[in-house]
Amino acid sequence: MRTLIENALLVPMTGKKDAKRGSILIEDGKIARIGTFELDSAADKVIDGSEKIALPGLINAHTHLSMGLMRNYKDSSPNLQQWLSEIFPIEDKLRGEDIYQASRLGLVELIKSGCTFFSDMYFQSENTARAVKEAKMRGALGLTLFGDGKETRRRFRELLPPIMDEIGSYEKLRLDIAPHAIYTCTAETYTLAKEKANELGVILNTHLSETRKEVEDALYSYGKTPLDYLESLGILDENTLLAHAVHLTDEEMELAHERGLSIVHNPSSNAKLASGTLDVPHAIEKGINVSLGTDGASSNNNLNMMEEMHVSALIQTSHNLTPMKLSPYEILQMATVNGAKALHLEEKIGTLEEGKDADIILIRTDRANMTPLNDVYSALIYSTSSEDVDTVFSQGEILMENRVLQTLDESEIIHKVRECWEDILSR
Amino acid sequence: MRTLIENALLVPMTGKKDAKRGSILIEDGKIARIGTFELDSAADKVIDGSEKIALPGLINAHTHLSMGLMRNYKDSSPNLQQWLSEIFPIEDKLRGEDIYQASRLGLVELIKSGCTFFSDMYFQSENTARAVKEAKMRGALGLTLFGDGKETRRRFRELLPPIMDEIGSYEKLRLDIAPHAIYTCTAETYTLAKEKANELGVILNTHLSETRKEVEDALYSYGKTPLDYLESLGILDENTLLAHAVHLTDEEMELAHERGLSIVHNPSSNAKLASGTLDVPHAIEKGINVSLGTDGASSNNNLNMMEEMHVSALIQTSHNLTPMKLSPYEILQMATVNGAKALHLEEKIGTLEEGKDADIILIRTDRANMTPLNDVYSALIYSTSSEDVDTVFSQGEILMENRVLQTLDESEIIHKVRECWEDILSR
Repeated sequence: MRTLIENALLVPMTGKKDAKRGSILIEDGKIARIGTFELDSAADKVIDGSEKIALPGLINAHTHLSMGLMRNYKDSSPNLQQWLSEIFPIEDKLRGEDIYQASRLGLVELIKSGCTFFSDMYFQSENTARAVKEAKMRGALGLTLFGDGKETRRRFRELLPPIMDEIGSYEKLRLDIAPHAIYTCTAETYTLAKEKANELGVILNTHLSETRKEVEDALYSYGKTPLDYLESLGILDENTLLAHAVHLTDEEMELAHERGLSIVHNPSSNAKLASGTLDVPHAIEKGINVSLGTDGASSNNNLNMMEEMHVSALIQTSHNLTPMKLSPYEILQMATVNGAKALHLEEKIGTLEEGKDADIILIRTDRANMTPLNDVYSALIYSTSSEDVDTVFSQGEILMENRVLQTLDESEIIHKVRECWEDILSR
Repeated sequence: MRTLIENALLVPMTGKKDAKRGSILIEDGKIARIGTFELDSAADKVIDGSEKIALPGLINAHTHLSMGLMRNYKDSSPNLQQWLSEIFPIEDKLRGEDIYQASRLGLVELIKSGCTFFSDMYFQSENTARAVKEAKMRGALGLTLFGDGKETRRRFRELLPPIMDEIGSYEKLRLDIAPHAIYTCTAETYTLAKEKANELGVILNTHLSETRKEVEDALYSYGKTPLDYLESLGILDENTLLAHAVHLTDEEMELAHERGLSIVHNPSSNAKLASGTLDVPHAIEKGINVSLGTDGASSNNNLNMMEEMHVSALIQTSHNLTPMKLSPYEILQMATVNGAKALHLEEKIGTLEEGKDADIILIRTDRANMTPLNDVYSALIYSTSSEDVDTVFSQGEILMENRVLQTLDESEIIHKVRECWEDILSR
């Protein structure tokens, strides 16, 4: 199968503002050619790109797909801790079918907003794996850890195998190791998590420094800031991915840079829960790789990656009071190539280059909100809406075309999720 | 023509959280019945509301429609003053046709994001009036004033009549008086503006206290803060509408409350231009009527009122670090009933009540991002996207149905705007 995207406005994200008109040839799931070229034989399928921007698929580096179930549920809680106290009892009631249906719901939102890779952290992830396989989507599932070493060993023994079994030979899915947070996991759990991540050759992915309270509690309990505490456990390296990292001190940022770890900025969630604002330009100046995530739909309250880029721009400018201190190009980097780096997939995804996987999205320019197209980077951050995302490729497979989902039935999923949620509330 | 919206989730915005299932009968452009009722004879048209929220049409209380031309143009300027210095030379080149086409472009964006009334401030507004009439849209056009009394008298003499002529008997349009700002207009201009507004029985609408620099300059030039300066001119009353009002002091807020004036919050523009953040909950506590606006598309960079509500929520929580201090219901009030009050149209629009004009929007709930619908107010602020706006009524006339525009041709408009913009840049 050879697909040609013809005469699009290419935004390859290869490190400079090099948007230009050109074509992309997709062959065997990869970008075979990009730029200006002649084909020796006709492609099987040709897509007219003359009114489309071609961008690498967006990478949602931190989410909890199944939390879509709790969307807008009890969301007037005054802080993260209190909100979690409303959410945890619901989570205890969730069954495999709930996770499966909610995962499908989340995948609809991701694909419709141009996301082609996500990093998930949740429970009973074999059900998420099934949903992802059926949707032909791509991502990393975190085996979530809570509690002490004994519980962690039990999870490795009992919960890890069914996920690995479900993933099986599906190469678009990976299992990462995800201790929840320093306030829910013991030191032993983090140590065991790191051992397991190394054994599997995957990422250790955890929440860190999300709220002021977490920092204060860490100082009280360990006499250390959260990142210093993880450093004292000897688990930080380039395979570490920290979600939120809102309250990192300058010293912690320097440590993060030294260790080569990545962080995930979640602007909507941090704003909505009033957790605080990560100073992204400062983190970038300190040399940290900053990626972007939506967090779960219950603290956002959607999984719209196009919107997340927009929100990140406005929140940062509002916070720093300097326009464009975080430029549209840098935000696009966060949502593409930086996400790929954070997940150690920079050889495969995150940019449009020959030889890379064809994870590509096409965004319409023949829309009022995209007219005139004076600056494609500003337009992508400030003017677009997810509605403008027209077509989504995942390793060359079309997951959405002309805004019609190809692997998921949104109406049927909505129906099923409503049934699950009513049932959960009645349990 | 009698239209029945049957079995929708009604969000009437009448002052309490009273969303409930019911129907709306539209007759002669007005809401004839709302709630649970039996019809004595069949309606001419029936819309199934079972998967829709019915909300009053959104009111964009501050915009510059035609600035869509300068969307994403030179938008990396470090501050408002410098950005205006890039924009003003372009504006000097604009001709009637440019304004007409750009106004149509803006109307597409407004209708597609659920807006049914807008307050515009720009030049050559007879061209905007023509576009609005053709689109069957509804709004107020500000006669923009710049400079001294002599120039203002000239504008009243030469620029006002063609706009009034174009408006003619079209009752959905009104002309307001809009001195641009205290740093571009003299005291005499403000006094003349107020006289003219009183004479016509309309609103005086002006930018105020948008940036820290404006406040500093006012203190330097007049020895007064911006609102105290306008107070010293004796022009403040309930017919005054102030756009931005970012840097009002507590004393100015109290004065604003005493005078009964309204303000328009423009969160995207204020964030994007790094102008600062109006503390909206504080202004509401002080008794000020706060409405919502997008500002122009060149400082936003779109005219998406659904997005504007979302942005206002996140920016305020991020600023105040208290979740829901500005609640979803209050934000919906800003975008509906408060806008109606600000424009002195609260007898006609802003809520869904019998006898009011049928300015109504229908928002789809059968979308992944709206599932499950645990809290309709949170969902409307945090989860929806403009794509979910399905149908728009303006005084009972359908401007968009099933997301298809009924009075405007988006493709044709985009084509014309591109032509105009190329021509402008070559002048």
